[in-house]
Amino acid sequence: MLVVQKFGGSSVANAERIKRVAERVWRTRQAGNEVVVVVSAMGDTTDELIDLARQVTSDPSPREMDQLLSTGEQVSIALLAMALQALGAEAISLTGAQAGITTDGIYGKASISAVDTRRLKEELAAGRIPVVAGFQGLAPNGDVTTLGRGGSDTTAVALAAALQADLCEIYTDVEGVFTADPRLVPEAVKLPAISYDEMLELACLGAVVLHPRAVELAKIYQVPLRVRSSFSEDPGTVIKEEDDMEKKRVVSGVAHDLNVARIGIFDVFDRPGIAYRLFSSLAAENINVDMIIQGMTRDGRNDISFTVSRHELPQALKVVEKVKEEIGAKGYTYDDRVGKVSIVGAGMITRPGVAAAMFEALSREGINIEMISTSEIKVSCIIKEEEVPRAVKALHRHFGLENLGDKE
Amino acid sequence: MLVVQKFGGSSVANAERIKRVAERVWRTRQAGNEVVVVVSAMGDTTDELIDLARQVTSDPSPREMDQLLSTGEQVSIALLAMALQALGAEAISLTGAQAGITTDGIYGKASISAVDTRRLKEELAAGRIPVVAGFQGLAPNGDVTTLGRGGSDTTAVALAAALQADLCEIYTDVEGVFTADPRLVPEAVKLPAISYDEMLELACLGAVVLHPRAVELAKIYQVPLRVRSSFSEDPGTVIKEEDDMEKKRVVSGVAHDLNVARIGIFDVFDRPGIAYRLFSSLAAENINVDMIIQGMTRDGRNDISFTVSRHELPQALKVVEKVKEEIGAKGYTYDDRVGKVSIVGAGMITRPGVAAAMFEALSREGINIEMISTSEIKVSCIIKEEEVPRAVKALHRHFGLENLGDKE
Repeated sequence: MLVVQKFGGSSVANAERIKRVAERVWRTRQAGNEVVVVVSAMGDTTDELIDLARQVTSDPSPREMDQLLSTGEQVSIALLAMALQALGAEAISLTGAQAGITTDGIYGKASISAVDTRRLKEELAAGRIPVVAGFQGLAPNGDVTTLGRGGSDTTAVALAAALQADLCEIYTDVEGVFTADPRLVPEAVKLPAISYDEMLELACLGAVVLHPRAVELAKIYQVPLRVRSSFSEDPGTVIKEEDDMEKKRVVSGVAHDLNVARIGIFDVFDRPGIAYRLFSSLAAENINVDMIIQGMTRDGRNDISFTVSRHELPQALKVVEKVKEEIGAKGYTYDDRVGKVSIVGAGMITRPGVAAAMFEALSREGINIEMISTSEIKVSCIIKEEEVPRAVKALHRHFGLENLGDKE
Repeated sequence: MLVVQKFGGSSVANAERIKRVAERVWRTRQAGNEVVVVVSAMGDTTDELIDLARQVTSDPSPREMDQLLSTGEQVSIALLAMALQALGAEAISLTGAQAGITTDGIYGKASISAVDTRRLKEELAAGRIPVVAGFQGLAPNGDVTTLGRGGSDTTAVALAAALQADLCEIYTDVEGVFTADPRLVPEAVKLPAISYDEMLELACLGAVVLHPRAVELAKIYQVPLRVRSSFSEDPGTVIKEEDDMEKKRVVSGVAHDLNVARIGIFDVFDRPGIAYRLFSSLAAENINVDMIIQGMTRDGRNDISFTVSRHELPQALKVVEKVKEEIGAKGYTYDDRVGKVSIVGAGMITRPGVAAAMFEALSREGINIEMISTSEIKVSCIIKEEEVPRAVKALHRHFGLENLGDKE
């Protein structure tokens, strides 16, 4: 079996942990598998490098930031290759460029455009374990580019896809994907398996176990993923295409997100181009808008509400202030003390009434819903921040998620 | 004028110093010069990376060490390029590979085999300041290789040679080349100029201001060097081909080295191949032998003495123990409490009696000479370690070196 194993920053935070990772990789190799390893930068290295850059200039150029940050992973791959060699393994560290990863050349948030697998296949054929730097790749002009958020997970999935690996294992500091955050819901259970679409929704809705970008790539190339802890032997959670078994699971998990702020704009003109004007102005400032709700028209006027990340609220309000006259707004409000709770489940598509059941559960708890947004496999509600923990617990109980645990 | 400026680790040890270096580079550029910058890793970065590797394994592979250590310079170039950009300069960081530096591929101690200057010339033509990582280059197989000791100085000289630069400035934490170590000899003065050959001898004899390897390369390609401090405006010391003015200077400086141990072997066979057997065995263990003295034959027997670095003494003694019967030695002694004092001067060649004057000065101080070694432009003596400071002072006075200061 060909396995790609990816280890995050906390898994390689110091020499001791790097040695433990090496032991795990070596066990996988000795069990008869071919292994390609992808690693992130050690612990807080990336933050330290960013801090160093800030000490030098408040406005570092993206090219130089990439030249700087890419060293973090280069340190990890060298150290992990050494640790593997010390165990008797044949290992070789490869930077993104050496591993054949090319990108579109956009500094700081490059996309992988191709993986030339020749070098990797040569190393595998020679019996070696390639240890590849995550988060980076070679730009067409020969520069180093980093992949931005979720970059190392994405590297692992891209290599697994290009090599047609049998499995891509993502090692992290949690044991897998849970029905809810165990810190909020003690009865939350680890799911043995989940579909790409469900994982994608959960990842977008605040479950930080895996970056949506990597899940999306895995779905496109049908790369089977396994999320598991580098600190235990638990088999973790498998993420794959949904099958009938999973379809039957109406709700797979409850997600929550406290990094939410809501903006409401009153009485904007009800005519074409208003929404475009507002949201393109926000996009131009690189502000990510999550939920958007537009109510019914009343007297040729509309209300528009939307949510953004909390730290982007001040910037978003500036944009609103700038465009408010143009869109005819009579005023606006904002609230940064809100949170989002969501239920996710592939089975929702075929089962009407799931959203209603969610609203019922929240209403029984006396929780007021401020905004609602639905997709085929999820329902999200914006509620008061302080009610989020109670809401998550109630939803977990209401949908009986404590029964979804490991019974593979 | 095209100037290559090289800044060592202490000159870029933190963000503040990096900004100061940027200001200096920018001033040089604004004075109408083209500038190429070469930097070392920040402060103790290299030692910290070595320490990290040691925590992972006692025997890291040279390839992975190079992959690891080369990140140190990559961090510095990115930060310095950012600092230059913050001043309004157009700057671009280049790794060794990006700057077109290829090596012979020997990990940990590679030699530069070629510099493809196309990229550098393009950047210069575009008005940019290339900031190049010292100490590294691309191996023929695409791996990163480091250049070993003196690597960053060597990078700077190699780039200056390849670009036919008008000057190569080596910035360090001392103000230039002194007639003796000012910590030992308060009257020591900074030399305004010195020849390649003299600098080479001084560098080999313990003056750590510049690595002999870089001086040698500068001599071959006739690259004018200037050694100066990054913490002052002092013009430093120029190192160039000797001219008549300098030839007249019989003694230019007194050097000393405390990292010396002496081994003496008694009564070895006086027949061909004995020296070869001994010193090839030492070379096979990578032990660097400095001075070698073989006395006169007595009764078909010889004594051989030689010196090694102190930290290599235990290893050297093991080799001696192994070969002593084969070479017929009746016994051996060693002493790691010795030191070396040397006088260097291009004018010695044409002036007999300089060595005698040295011996006279030492004898007046009551200092016993244990070994003597001479070359065309230097005389070195091994003496007791504790007498080294007194010897250096006496020689400095005896040859009137306090009069050699800045009078350009």
